[in-house]
Amino acid sequence: MKRTGRRRGAPDTRAAILTAAARRFAAAGYDQASLRAIAADAGVDQKLISHYFGSKQQLFVAAIGLPLNPADILPAVLAGGREGLAERLGDVLTALLEQPDVHQRLTGVVRGAASNPEVARMLREFLTREVFVPVAASLGADEPLLRANLVGAQVVGLLMARYVVAVEPLASTPAPVVAAAVAPALERYLVGSLAGQS
Amino acid sequence: MKRTGRRRGAPDTRAAILTAAARRFAAAGYDQASLRAIAADAGVDQKLISHYFGSKQQLFVAAIGLPLNPADILPAVLAGGREGLAERLGDVLTALLEQPDVHQRLTGVVRGAASNPEVARMLREFLTREVFVPVAASLGADEPLLRANLVGAQVVGLLMARYVVAVEPLASTPAPVVAAAVAPALERYLVGSLAGQS
Repeated sequence: MKRTGRRRGAPDTRAAILTAAARRFAAAGYDQASLRAIAADAGVDQKLISHYFGSKQQLFVAAIGLPLNPADILPAVLAGGREGLAERLGDVLTALLEQPDVHQRLTGVVRGAASNPEVARMLREFLTREVFVPVAASLGADEPLLRANLVGAQVVGLLMARYVVAVEPLASTPAPVVAAAVAPALERYLVGSLAGQS
Repeated sequence: MKRTGRRRGAPDTRAAILTAAARRFAAAGYDQASLRAIAADAGVDQKLISHYFGSKQQLFVAAIGLPLNPADILPAVLAGGREGLAERLGDVLTALLEQPDVHQRLTGVVRGAASNPEVARMLREFLTREVFVPVAASLGADEPLLRANLVGAQVVGLLMARYVVAVEPLASTPAPVVAAAVAPALERYLVGSLAGQS
Protein backbone atom coordinates (compact mmCIF):
# COMPACT_ATOMS: atom_id res chain seq x y z
CA MET A 1 0.00 0.00 0.00
CA LYS A 2 1.52 3.32 -1.03
CA ARG A 3 1.42 6.35 1.23
CA THR A 4 -0.04 9.26 -0.67
CA GLY A 5 0.08 11.87 2.10
CA ARG A 6 -2.71 13.26 4.26
CA ARG A 7 -5.81 13.66 2.13
CA ARG A 8 -9.57 13.78 2.42
CA GLY A 9 -10.12 11.03 -0.10
CA ALA A 10 -9.97 7.99 2.20
CA PRO A 11 -12.79 8.32 4.70
CA ASP A 12 -13.42 4.58 4.68
CA THR A 13 -9.92 3.77 5.90
CA ARG A 14 -10.09 6.33 8.65
CA ALA A 15 -13.54 5.15 9.71
CA ALA A 16 -12.44 1.51 9.65
CA ILE A 17 -9.53 2.33 11.94
CA LEU A 18 -11.79 4.23 14.35
CA THR A 19 -14.30 1.38 14.46
CA ALA A 20 -11.60 -1.21 15.04
CA ALA A 21 -9.98 0.98 17.69
CA ALA A 22 -13.22 1.52 19.61
CA ARG A 23 -13.87 -2.23 19.67
CA ARG A 24 -10.32 -3.19 20.58
CA PHE A 25 -10.01 -0.55 23.33
CA ALA A 26 -13.31 -1.75 24.81
CA ALA A 27 -12.40 -5.42 24.63
CA ALA A 28 -8.76 -5.24 25.76
CA GLY A 29 -8.63 -1.98 27.71
CA TYR A 30 -6.43 0.98 26.86
CA ASP A 31 -3.21 -0.48 28.20
CA GLN A 32 -3.42 -3.86 26.44
CA ALA A 33 -4.84 -2.76 23.08
CA SER A 34 -2.02 -2.66 20.52
CA LEU A 35 -1.89 -0.59 17.35
CA ARG A 36 -0.84 -3.75 15.53
CA ALA A 37 -4.02 -5.55 16.57
CA ILE A 38 -6.17 -2.53 15.70
CA ALA A 39 -4.54 -2.32 12.26
CA ALA A 40 -5.15 -6.03 11.70
CA ASP A 41 -8.79 -5.68 12.75
CA ALA A 42 -9.24 -2.76 10.36
CA GLY A 43 -7.38 -4.55 7.55
CA VAL A 44 -4.88 -1.73 7.09
CA ASP A 45 -1.16 -1.23 7.43
CA GLN A 46 -0.23 -0.08 10.92
CA LYS A 47 1.57 2.92 9.41
CA LEU A 48 -1.80 4.27 8.30
CA ILE A 49 -2.81 4.64 11.96
CA SER A 50 0.20 6.85 12.59
CA HIS A 51 -0.56 8.66 9.38
CA TYR A 52 -4.15 9.46 10.27
CA PHE A 53 -3.99 9.78 14.04
CA GLY A 54 -0.39 9.97 15.26
CA SER A 55 -0.09 8.13 18.58
CA LYS A 56 -2.16 5.50 20.36
CA GLN A 57 -3.14 8.25 22.75
CA GLN A 58 -4.46 10.41 19.90
CA LEU A 59 -6.25 7.45 18.33
CA PHE A 60 -8.05 6.82 21.62
CA VAL A 61 -9.16 10.44 21.90
CA ALA A 62 -10.56 10.27 18.36
CA ALA A 63 -12.16 6.83 18.72
CA ILE A 64 -13.90 7.67 22.00
CA GLY A 65 -14.79 11.21 21.01
CA LEU A 66 -13.33 12.89 24.08
CA PRO A 67 -14.16 16.60 24.14
CA LEU A 68 -10.47 17.42 24.37
CA ASN A 69 -7.07 15.79 24.27
CA PRO A 70 -5.48 16.20 27.70
CA ALA A 71 -2.03 15.84 26.14
CA ASP A 72 -2.62 19.01 24.15
CA ILE A 73 -3.21 21.18 27.19
CA LEU A 74 -1.65 19.71 30.30
CA PRO A 75 2.02 20.44 29.57
CA ALA A 76 1.44 24.19 29.30
CA VAL A 77 -0.62 24.26 32.49
CA LEU A 78 1.89 22.34 34.55
CA ALA A 79 5.14 23.65 33.11
CA GLY A 80 4.95 26.97 34.93
CA GLY A 81 4.90 25.50 38.43
CA ARG A 82 2.84 26.98 41.27
CA GLU A 83 3.24 30.55 40.11
CA GLY A 84 0.09 31.55 38.23
CA LEU A 85 -1.23 27.99 38.32
CA ALA A 86 -4.83 28.93 39.14
CA GLU A 87 -4.85 31.45 36.30
CA ARG A 88 -3.57 28.92 33.78
CA LEU A 89 -6.10 26.37 35.04
CA GLY A 90 -8.82 28.98 34.60
CA ASP A 91 -7.73 29.70 31.04
CA VAL A 92 -7.76 26.01 30.12
CA LEU A 93 -11.13 25.52 31.75
CA THR A 94 -12.54 28.53 29.91
CA ALA A 95 -11.33 27.13 26.61
CA LEU A 96 -12.86 23.74 27.40
CA LEU A 97 -16.19 25.26 28.45
CA GLU A 98 -16.34 27.31 25.26
CA GLN A 99 -15.95 24.35 22.91
CA PRO A 100 -19.12 24.17 20.84
CA ASP A 101 -19.41 20.40 20.62
CA VAL A 102 -18.47 19.50 24.16
CA HIS A 103 -22.04 18.61 25.06
CA GLN A 104 -22.52 16.01 22.36
CA ARG A 105 -19.14 14.36 22.82
CA LEU A 106 -19.39 14.35 26.58
CA THR A 107 -22.83 12.77 26.76
CA GLY A 108 -21.61 9.94 24.53
CA VAL A 109 -18.61 9.25 26.73
CA VAL A 110 -20.62 9.49 29.95
CA ARG A 111 -23.35 7.23 28.61
CA GLY A 112 -20.76 4.66 27.57
CA ALA A 113 -18.95 4.73 30.91
CA ALA A 114 -22.19 4.33 32.87
CA SER A 115 -23.64 1.66 30.58
CA ASN A 116 -20.65 -0.51 29.88
CA PRO A 117 -17.96 -1.61 32.35
CA GLU A 118 -15.56 -2.11 29.43
CA VAL A 119 -15.88 1.54 28.45
CA ALA A 120 -15.37 2.55 32.08
CA ARG A 121 -12.23 0.42 32.22
CA MET A 122 -10.67 1.83 29.07
CA LEU A 123 -11.42 5.37 30.22
CA ARG A 124 -9.94 4.61 33.63
CA GLU A 125 -6.78 3.17 32.06
CA PHE A 126 -6.45 6.01 29.57
CA LEU A 127 -6.96 8.71 32.19
CA THR A 128 -4.52 7.06 34.59
CA ARG A 129 -1.77 6.54 32.02
CA GLU A 130 -2.16 9.69 29.92
CA VAL A 131 -3.49 12.21 32.40
CA PHE A 132 -3.17 11.30 36.08
CA VAL A 133 0.31 9.79 36.04
CA PRO A 134 1.87 12.63 34.00
CA VAL A 135 0.15 15.24 36.15
CA ALA A 136 1.20 13.45 39.32
CA ALA A 137 4.79 13.20 38.12
CA SER A 138 4.94 16.96 37.68
CA LEU A 139 3.57 17.72 41.17
CA GLY A 140 5.89 18.33 44.06
CA ALA A 141 3.21 17.34 46.56
CA ASP A 142 2.11 14.36 48.64
CA GLU A 143 -0.41 11.88 47.22
CA PRO A 144 0.03 13.12 43.66
CA LEU A 145 -2.20 10.51 42.00
CA LEU A 146 -5.08 11.18 44.39
CA ARG A 147 -4.66 14.88 43.62
CA ALA A 148 -4.86 14.25 39.90
CA ASN A 149 -7.97 12.10 40.47
CA LEU A 150 -9.61 14.92 42.41
CA VAL A 151 -8.91 17.39 39.60
CA GLY A 152 -10.48 14.97 37.13
CA ALA A 153 -13.50 14.49 39.39
CA GLN A 154 -14.08 18.24 39.64
CA VAL A 155 -13.77 18.79 35.89
CA VAL A 156 -16.04 15.91 34.92
CA GLY A 157 -18.64 16.99 37.47
CA LEU A 158 -18.60 20.53 36.15
CA LEU A 159 -19.06 19.30 32.58
CA MET A 160 -21.85 16.92 33.64
CA ALA A 161 -23.74 19.62 35.52
CA ARG A 162 -23.30 22.26 32.81
CA TYR A 163 -23.87 20.14 29.70
CA VAL A 164 -25.56 16.82 30.50
CA VAL A 165 -28.02 17.77 33.23
CA ALA A 166 -27.71 21.44 32.24
CA VAL A 167 -28.71 22.98 35.56
CA GLU A 168 -29.32 26.71 35.65
CA PRO A 169 -27.77 29.18 36.09
CA LEU A 170 -24.58 27.11 35.68
CA ALA A 171 -25.38 26.10 32.11
CA SER A 172 -25.75 29.69 30.90
CA THR A 173 -23.11 31.39 33.03
CA PRO A 174 -20.24 32.69 30.85
CA ALA A 175 -17.33 30.26 30.70
CA PRO A 176 -14.76 32.66 32.22
CA VAL A 177 -16.99 33.26 35.27
CA VAL A 178 -17.43 29.52 35.82
CA ALA A 179 -13.73 28.89 35.28
CA ALA A 180 -12.76 31.58 37.81
CA ALA A 181 -15.10 30.04 40.37
CA VAL A 182 -13.70 26.53 39.92
CA ALA A 183 -9.97 27.17 39.32
CA PRO A 184 -9.10 27.71 43.02
CA ALA A 185 -10.52 24.27 43.85
CA LEU A 186 -8.36 22.73 41.12
CA GLU A 187 -5.31 24.59 42.40
CA ARG A 188 -5.92 23.33 45.95
CA TYR A 189 -6.33 19.77 44.72
CA LEU A 190 -3.05 20.04 42.81
CA VAL A 191 -0.79 21.76 45.34
CA GLY A 192 -2.76 22.73 48.47
CA SER A 193 -3.60 20.85 51.63
CA LEU A 194 -5.86 17.82 51.27
CA ALA A 195 -6.33 17.40 55.01
CA GLY A 196 -9.31 19.66 55.30
CA GLN A 197 -7.75 23.09 55.87
CA SER A 198 -7.87 25.13 52.69
CA MET B 1 -60.10 0.47 49.34
CA LYS B 2 -59.27 0.10 53.02
CA ARG B 3 -56.00 1.30 54.49
CA THR B 4 -54.41 -1.54 56.40
CA GLY B 5 -51.24 0.22 57.48
CA ARG B 6 -47.73 -0.08 56.11
CA ARG B 7 -47.11 -3.69 55.24
CA ARG B 8 -44.95 -5.88 53.06
CA GLY B 9 -47.89 -7.67 51.45
CA ALA B 10 -48.53 -5.34 48.49
CA PRO B 11 -45.39 -5.25 46.38
CA ASP B 12 -47.41 -5.04 43.15
CA THR B 13 -49.09 -1.79 44.17
CA ARG B 14 -45.82 -0.23 45.20
CA ALA B 15 -44.12 -1.39 42.01
CA ALA B 16 -47.01 -0.15 39.87
CA ILE B 17 -46.73 3.29 41.46
CA LEU B 18 -42.95 3.38 40.89
CA THR B 19 -43.33 2.39 37.25
CA ALA B 20 -46.06 4.95 36.64
CA ALA B 21 -44.04 7.62 38.43
CA ALA B 22 -40.88 6.96 36.43
CA ARG B 23 -42.84 7.23 33.17
CA ARG B 24 -44.81 10.30 34.19
CA PHE B 25 -41.74 12.16 35.54
CA ALA B 26 -39.88 11.42 32.31
CA ALA B 27 -42.78 12.47 30.06
CA ALA B 28 -43.95 15.57 31.95
CA GLY B 29 -40.85 16.58 33.92
CA TYR B 30 -40.65 16.82 37.69
CA ASP B 31 -42.51 20.11 38.03
CA GLN B 32 -45.51 19.20 35.86
CA ALA B 33 -46.00 15.57 36.90
CA SER B 34 -48.90 15.36 39.36
CA LEU B 35 -49.50 12.68 41.97
CA ARG B 36 -53.09 12.47 40.71
CA ALA B 37 -51.92 11.58 37.20
CA ILE B 38 -49.40 9.06 38.53
CA ALA B 39 -52.09 7.42 40.67
CA ALA B 40 -54.40 7.24 37.67
CA ASP B 41 -51.65 5.70 35.52
CA ALA B 42 -50.97 3.11 38.22
CA GLY B 43 -54.68 2.43 38.76
CA VAL B 44 -54.50 3.18 42.49
CA ASP B 45 -55.98 5.68 44.90
CA GLN B 46 -53.76 8.72 45.24
CA LYS B 47 -53.70 8.21 49.02
CA LEU B 48 -51.71 5.04 48.47
CA ILE B 49 -48.85 7.12 47.06
CA SER B 50 -48.69 9.12 50.28
CA HIS B 51 -49.00 5.90 52.20
CA TYR B 52 -46.09 4.20 50.47
CA PHE B 53 -43.82 7.11 49.68
CA GLY B 54 -44.90 10.26 51.50
CA SER B 55 -44.31 13.27 49.27
CA LYS B 56 -43.83 13.78 45.54
CA GLN B 57 -40.22 14.53 46.37
CA GLN B 58 -39.80 11.16 48.11
CA LEU B 59 -41.61 9.36 45.31
CA PHE B 60 -39.17 10.83 42.79
CA VAL B 61 -36.15 9.74 44.84
CA ALA B 62 -37.56 6.19 44.98
CA ALA B 63 -38.64 6.06 41.32
CA ILE B 64 -35.32 7.33 39.99
CA GLY B 65 -33.21 5.41 42.47
CA LEU B 66 -31.17 8.37 43.68
CA PRO B 67 -28.37 7.25 46.00
CA LEU B 68 -29.69 9.60 48.68
CA ASN B 69 -32.56 11.94 49.40
CA PRO B 70 -31.16 15.47 49.61
CA ALA B 71 -34.12 16.51 51.77
CA ASP B 72 -32.97 14.10 54.46
CA ILE B 73 -29.57 15.65 54.87
CA LEU B 74 -29.51 19.26 53.69
CA PRO B 75 -31.42 20.86 56.59
CA ALA B 76 -28.93 19.64 59.19
CA VAL B 77 -25.95 20.77 57.08
CA LEU B 78 -27.30 24.24 56.46
CA ALA B 79 -29.02 24.95 59.77
CA GLY B 80 -25.81 25.67 61.64
CA GLY B 81 -24.69 28.55 59.42
CA ARG B 82 -21.06 29.16 58.53
CA GLU B 83 -19.70 27.90 61.83
CA GLY B 84 -18.49 24.35 61.34
CA LEU B 85 -19.96 24.19 57.83
CA ALA B 86 -16.99 22.40 56.24
CA GLU B 87 -17.02 19.81 58.99
CA ARG B 88 -20.74 19.12 58.56
CA LEU B 89 -20.27 18.93 54.78
CA GLY B 90 -17.45 16.45 55.34
CA ASP B 91 -19.62 14.29 57.57
CA VAL B 92 -22.45 14.20 55.02
CA LEU B 93 -20.03 13.42 52.22
CA THR B 94 -18.46 10.63 54.25
CA ALA B 95 -21.88 9.10 54.89
CA LEU B 96 -22.73 9.33 51.18
CA LEU B 97 -19.41 7.79 50.12
CA GLU B 98 -19.88 4.91 52.55
CA GLN B 99 -23.29 3.86 51.21
CA PRO B 100 -22.90 0.32 49.90
CA ASP B 101 -25.25 0.61 46.91
CA VAL B 102 -24.26 4.06 45.70
CA HIS B 103 -22.42 2.67 42.69
CA GLN B 104 -25.34 0.76 41.25
CA ARG B 105 -27.89 3.51 41.80
CA LEU B 106 -25.61 6.22 40.53
CA THR B 107 -24.68 4.48 37.29
CA GLY B 108 -28.37 4.03 36.52
CA VAL B 109 -29.11 7.71 37.05
CA VAL B 110 -26.06 8.85 35.11
CA ARG B 111 -26.80 6.51 32.22
CA GLY B 112 -30.37 7.78 32.09
CA ALA B 113 -29.37 11.43 32.16
CA ALA B 114 -26.78 10.98 29.41
CA SER B 115 -28.99 8.78 27.22
CA ASN B 116 -32.34 10.48 27.51
CA PRO B 117 -33.03 14.22 27.46
CA GLU B 118 -36.28 13.59 29.35
CA VAL B 119 -34.40 12.03 32.24
CA ALA B 120 -31.95 14.94 32.21
CA ARG B 121 -34.89 17.38 32.33
CA MET B 122 -36.63 15.72 35.25
CA LEU B 123 -33.36 15.52 37.18
CA ARG B 124 -32.65 19.18 36.42
CA GLU B 125 -36.12 20.20 37.60
CA PHE B 126 -35.95 18.02 40.70
CA LEU B 127 -32.50 19.24 41.68
CA THR B 128 -33.44 22.86 41.10
CA ARG B 129 -36.69 22.72 43.06
CA GLU B 130 -35.74 20.35 45.86
CA VAL B 131 -32.03 20.97 46.27
CA PHE B 132 -30.65 24.12 44.67
CA VAL B 133 -33.46 26.54 45.53
CA PRO B 134 -33.67 25.46 49.21
CA VAL B 135 -29.90 25.58 49.56
CA ALA B 136 -29.75 28.96 47.84
CA ALA B 137 -32.50 30.32 50.07
CA SER B 138 -30.48 29.47 53.16
CA LEU B 139 -27.27 31.11 51.92
CA GLY B 140 -26.46 34.66 52.86
CA ALA B 141 -24.22 35.07 49.80
CA ASP B 142 -24.30 36.47 46.27
CA GLU B 143 -25.33 34.25 43.35
CA PRO B 144 -26.85 31.58 45.62
CA LEU B 145 -28.26 29.39 42.84
CA LEU B 146 -24.94 29.28 40.98
CA ARG B 147 -23.28 28.33 44.27
CA ALA B 148 -25.71 25.48 44.80
CA ASN B 149 -25.09 24.33 41.21
CA LEU B 150 -21.34 24.31 41.82
CA VAL B 151 -21.77 22.18 44.95
CA GLY B 152 -23.89 19.75 42.96
CA ALA B 153 -21.29 19.65 40.18
CA GLN B 154 -18.50 18.84 42.62
CA VAL B 155 -20.47 16.09 44.35
CA VAL B 156 -21.63 14.41 41.14
CA GLY B 157 -18.12 14.55 39.70
CA LEU B 158 -16.67 12.96 42.81
CA LEU B 159 -19.25 10.17 42.67
CA MET B 160 -18.67 9.63 38.94
CA ALA B 161 -14.89 9.42 39.35
CA ARG B 162 -15.04 7.18 42.43
CA TYR B 163 -17.85 4.83 41.42
CA VAL B 164 -18.58 4.95 37.69
CA VAL B 165 -15.10 5.32 36.17
CA ALA B 166 -13.53 4.13 39.45
CA VAL B 167 -10.15 5.77 39.05
CA GLU B 168 -7.44 4.82 41.51
CA PRO B 169 -6.47 5.70 44.15
CA LEU B 170 -9.68 7.75 44.54
CA ALA B 171 -11.93 4.68 44.37
CA SER B 172 -10.20 2.92 47.25
CA THR B 173 -9.29 5.91 49.44
CA PRO B 174 -11.25 5.82 52.72
CA ALA B 175 -14.39 7.94 52.59
CA PRO B 176 -13.38 10.29 55.44
CA VAL B 177 -10.09 11.10 53.69
CA VAL B 178 -11.86 11.91 50.43
CA ALA B 179 -14.52 13.91 52.24
CA ALA B 180 -11.91 15.97 54.08
CA ALA B 181 -10.16 16.73 50.80
CA VAL B 182 -13.35 17.88 49.07
CA ALA B 183 -15.25 19.63 51.87
CA PRO B 184 -13.25 22.90 51.67
CA ALA B 185 -14.20 23.22 48.00
CA LEU B 186 -17.86 22.77 48.88
CA GLU B 187 -17.57 25.34 51.66
CA ARG B 188 -16.00 27.86 49.30
CA TYR B 189 -18.72 27.29 46.71
CA LEU B 190 -21.37 27.83 49.37
CA VAL B 191 -20.05 30.87 51.21
CA GLY B 192 -16.60 31.84 49.89
CA SER B 193 -15.50 34.06 47.01
CA LEU B 194 -16.41 32.90 43.52
CA ALA B 195 -14.30 35.54 41.82
CA GLY B 196 -11.12 33.52 41.75
CA GLN B 197 -9.49 34.33 45.09
CA SER B 198 -9.94 31.45 47.49
